Amino acid sequence: MERDDPTPGKGQLLVDVTRCGICGSDLHARHHADAVADIAAEFGYSGLMRSGHEVVLGHEFCGVVVDHGPKTRKKIKPGTPVVAVPFLRGGDGEVHTIGLSPHAPGAYAERMLVEQSLAMPVPNGLPSELAVLTEPMAVAFHAVRRGEVGKKTVAIVIGCGPIGLAVICMLKAQGVRRVVASDFSATRRALAVRCGADLAVDPAAESPYEDLDRHGYVVRAPDLFEMAVGGMEKLRRLPLPWEPVYRAAEALGVGAPSGPVVFECVGVPGVIDQIVAAAPMATRVVVVGVCMEGDRIRPAMAINKEVDLRFVIGYTPIEYRDTLHMIAEGKVDPAPLVTGTVGLDGVDDAFSALGDPERHAKILIDPKR
Amino acid sequence: MERDDPTPGKGQLLVDVTRCGICGSDLHARHHADAVADIAAEFGYSGLMRSGHEVVLGHEFCGVVVDHGPKTRKKIKPGTPVVAVPFLRGGDGEVHTIGLSPHAPGAYAERMLVEQSLAMPVPNGLPSELAVLTEPMAVAFHAVRRGEVGKKTVAIVIGCGPIGLAVICMLKAQGVRRVVASDFSATRRALAVRCGADLAVDPAAESPYEDLDRHGYVVRAPDLFEMAVGGMEKLRRLPLPWEPVYRAAEALGVGAPSGPVVFECVGVPGVIDQIVAAAPMATRVVVVGVCMEGDRIRPAMAINKEVDLRFVIGYTPIEYRDTLHMIAEGKVDPAPLVTGTVGLDGVDDAFSALGDPERHAKILIDPKR
Repeated sequence: MERDDPTPGKGQLLVDVTRCGICGSDLHARHHADAVADIAAEFGYSGLMRSGHEVVLGHEFCGVVVDHGPKTRKKIKPGTPVVAVPFLRGGDGEVHTIGLSPHAPGAYAERMLVEQSLAMPVPNGLPSELAVLTEPMAVAFHAVRRGEVGKKTVAIVIGCGPIGLAVICMLKAQGVRRVVASDFSATRRALAVRCGADLAVDPAAESPYEDLDRHGYVVRAPDLFEMAVGGMEKLRRLPLPWEPVYRAAEALGVGAPSGPVVFECVGVPGVIDQIVAAAPMATRVVVVGVCMEGDRIRPAMAINKEVDLRFVIGYTPIEYRDTLHMIAEGKVDPAPLVTGTVGLDGVDDAFSALGDPERHAKILIDPKR
Repeated sequence: MERDDPTPGKGQLLVDVTRCGICGSDLHARHHADAVADIAAEFGYSGLMRSGHEVVLGHEFCGVVVDHGPKTRKKIKPGTPVVAVPFLRGGDGEVHTIGLSPHAPGAYAERMLVEQSLAMPVPNGLPSELAVLTEPMAVAFHAVRRGEVGKKTVAIVIGCGPIGLAVICMLKAQGVRRVVASDFSATRRALAVRCGADLAVDPAAESPYEDLDRHGYVVRAPDLFEMAVGGMEKLRRLPLPWEPVYRAAEALGVGAPSGPVVFECVGVPGVIDQIVAAAPMATRVVVVGVCMEGDRIRPAMAINKEVDLRFVIGYTPIEYRDTLHMIAEGKVDPAPLVTGTVGLDGVDDAFSALGDPERHAKILIDPKR
């Protein structure tokens, strides 16, 4: 479809798109736009598309600055390669999500608008095929930070689509020693290993939780009661008052057990309950996969295991900035995520191809191709 | 019912019961025993009763040591008032929950057995009608610790039964400045205020979340997007590398927002989803109420609000010990929880009376009465 170049408003930049990533949300948008918009509206946000809207998709992007809006200080010079947090202020005071709102056309295009205040120069000559991954990698960085994963904690990633793979990359970049990946697809398990997973299991054949007891996790509740009894004996050696001795107590195993951290990167009903049923005591589940349907859980099981469910979305501006710099400095390498690049005329075929996990993970769009 | 005194085994104490609390789990046991046992069995614990079993209830208790089992070092002398973490080792190697297993008779009795290693002398001449509250107060202490509630965080307690009231007491004892309680019963709201709640609302008339925006919480998603845009401007002033500046960034509001902590002390299907729908961004929900049925949640809503659901049960041995000492030193006063005391012949009536929240919260049993 031909459109005129958009015109930047005050504080906005006109950007020549060099790459755009196709995100799972873009595929979702075809079928679930109204469900997503309904949920957003229920908590007061109306900056998302509905099914009747005509929207230019694309919120994962990088490009080169072409021009500034009127009365805008030129903090970022024309010719500078940039990425940007994908929000655009509307004239109505609303903040629209770029590529997911009819009022903020996205990067499935040759040119687009971004807010200068949300744009960041791409450092170190980082090529656009890596800079474009800042957005999904920031989602993963945020999820990993919210999971508070220690280096010695075992992390388990359920589902190795682009976000699962990005989470694996970020876990390894943070120095997490053991990362177990789980996916039914052999292709995606191979990608998980390329991203740094220490083990990639096919859940149809083996459980990703199987060897956790060998890593010191309490898998059976009776062990927990034994710990309580044994712990009390050790406890007698600890002095009152209590606050200063908690750390010591926990080191002695008198405190609550800590479990592994599981990243739910599937987003299909039933997966959360499956994880709670299969995981050891005190497991922390970071829910990254977006399940649009209602879901059923058994609180009594979660209570008996003292599970944490931490639901996450997006990232903070500083996480986005730091993800960009981590990629540019080679601290994390997201290259394995990309399984193909198409031109704008290849988007329809790419959407179909992404339906087959044996073929693709992340496909990029190069609008100049 | 008449029974002979139980005979203490090695490492066990025979205890003269001075008080026993009636717990919600005891009421549950009549109707949900099999559901509870099924869940426990699914994660490998078989130390709980089933509906056919004859069980002496009572896991909240205090008493006086009468005798020691054979070959047991007399660490705690006869005549010492004690409380104990309610587990008993069985000959089969299983650890049974006292008062909830047919193999570990509870404190709805004149005498009972406890493990000496799990027993603690009651200090400071603390009267038995307060020492007996160590167990439910430890549940609340554990829940508050798991909630990681800061002194400046607003805490909201949904449901003011005995556990909700205990949570309110513990939040105030920890110095949490603003505690909002919510219950349909006027009697329980009055008890909540006696326990220290700063505000007690009737959810039929007003929302417990209503004035949160006045306390600096982000109630509407658009405010979050505005924060992101504004945050980026501040962000430019922060140096790389990133790790050391996170704290500063979060203080500037560039980090993720933090929400209130909500304690779910109801345990009825639908309450978790109601909380997620009504609460502000980044709310941390501590699920203390035990919902035995399956429950329905909307992950997409929880994701968009970045909600944490932390499911909790019980306490660690050190938390139990410290709760005892907090009560004995007057750092927390659980007296308002108790609304009545009966003899063993009054238990049936007490069970009926507890069905009416306008009449009672916690009823104690005095077996000598």
